[in-house]
Amino acid sequence: MSALDIDCPLVEQTLCGFINEEIGKFGVGKAVFGMSGGIDSTVSAYLAARALGPENVLGIIMPYKLSNPESQAHAELAAVDLGIETLVVDITPMIDAYFEVFPDADNSRRGNKMARERMTILYDHSARLGAMVLGTSNKTEILLGYTTIWGDMASAINPIGDLYKTQLWQLARHLNVPAPIIDKKPSADLWEGQTDEGELGFTYEDVDKVFYELIDRRRKVDEIVADGFDRAFVEKAYRMVRDSQYKRRMPLIAKLSHRSMDRDFRYSRDWGR
Amino acid sequence: MSALDIDCPLVEQTLCGFINEEIGKFGVGKAVFGMSGGIDSTVSAYLAARALGPENVLGIIMPYKLSNPESQAHAELAAVDLGIETLVVDITPMIDAYFEVFPDADNSRRGNKMARERMTILYDHSARLGAMVLGTSNKTEILLGYTTIWGDMASAINPIGDLYKTQLWQLARHLNVPAPIIDKKPSADLWEGQTDEGELGFTYEDVDKVFYELIDRRRKVDEIVADGFDRAFVEKAYRMVRDSQYKRRMPLIAKLSHRSMDRDFRYSRDWGR
Repeated sequence: MSALDIDCPLVEQTLCGFINEEIGKFGVGKAVFGMSGGIDSTVSAYLAARALGPENVLGIIMPYKLSNPESQAHAELAAVDLGIETLVVDITPMIDAYFEVFPDADNSRRGNKMARERMTILYDHSARLGAMVLGTSNKTEILLGYTTIWGDMASAINPIGDLYKTQLWQLARHLNVPAPIIDKKPSADLWEGQTDEGELGFTYEDVDKVFYELIDRRRKVDEIVADGFDRAFVEKAYRMVRDSQYKRRMPLIAKLSHRSMDRDFRYSRDWGR
Repeated sequence: MSALDIDCPLVEQTLCGFINEEIGKFGVGKAVFGMSGGIDSTVSAYLAARALGPENVLGIIMPYKLSNPESQAHAELAAVDLGIETLVVDITPMIDAYFEVFPDADNSRRGNKMARERMTILYDHSARLGAMVLGTSNKTEILLGYTTIWGDMASAINPIGDLYKTQLWQLARHLNVPAPIIDKKPSADLWEGQTDEGELGFTYEDVDKVFYELIDRRRKVDEIVADGFDRAFVEKAYRMVRDSQYKRRMPLIAKLSHRSMDRDFRYSRDWGR
């Protein structure tokens, strides 16, 4: 029994209730989300389909010409299993039109542009259908800042943002997500052979253990090192959290008046609902 | 003397100090922002050029094929006056590539897609240059929700977000912004003849007065009506603020743990700087 073990039936019930309640209070009964074929968006799809009914969710698959065809195949496998509708929007024409003007852009710039393009497409179909955009970022990647600000980080509500990656694997098994999606190595699929863990230089299993101590239990770096974790690794994880805080906050507005946005003027998003 | 009158030299000094400090603490000395030729982005350009030096700011002009050519001419007029560099990025190829697939989209969907495309371009050049993205939304439009979520609302820091539109006119005159930019009717320039006030159905002068009472002085709708404002207008303004609150908050994450994003885990964006 690990501290990161979750009570899967209870988590499923809580998250389906969350989706229903948050979407319902805005008078909306539908959800739209990106389906990458990865575990995060697949788990979100399973939760949304159970919460709202498969007829009320739309999974949008947004490949780029260099995306691994396996990603789209996995997204379609999950969609068929759930009986939900999907829409494929190829982002290649928009992305290539832009980088034709800026051909020197590196992989990081290209990956961020793609993540933001996908957000714009989700919001466009949200407007078309009167559906709410579900976020599909997990707690590990949000804390690491292993995300694109105003890209995959941008959504209306996010059912899985308080679950670490290793907890998502547990929930995926409980939800009967198809095995190939659970078993493959997590990847942002921006170039061939890319894996999250290869790029990060550590495993999700290790960083989730450190984050549980650092974030949830509010323990100090020195204490965690005394438990037996490598100091350089713990310090790197801490630094990544701190240096990416700007991705988790709204823009900072210069304060001039008695009531400024996100300072003295701070209602919940469902104010008055 | 109106309650909305501002002390322009003090506001200029405060906002230039804000830009310098917030950009400096991230080890960045440069700013990038969109220049629409309108008063909001022009005032931001004047403040940024004075705060950082004209050589450290880049104004990006992002016309669409249907944009009024006057908009770009006004942006260039301001840039020449300031001696700052500009870059023109035509968004037509990316926008048209997308709407070729969804030709039925209405003006609202097209306008939001354009606002988000511009955000993705600003962030791409922010990465290219190691520059920070300045937001250029004012307090009136932020409160009205007369903005695109994750589009023009998305930035790193926003020097003018606590100034009402009528206060921006005051500051623009003080900063010697070219008269044609101050004198023209505010417009999102999404279609020919569009003006903000025509679309909203009221003037900035009126709504700013109501907002000052409602937001800054925390007075109730009934009290403001008793002052002589039209009830239907005050109620509409209040409703627009309430119904757009979701645009002013980060995505809502389902709470499962002891420390969730934007709830128990809420550092400032410059945590540790």
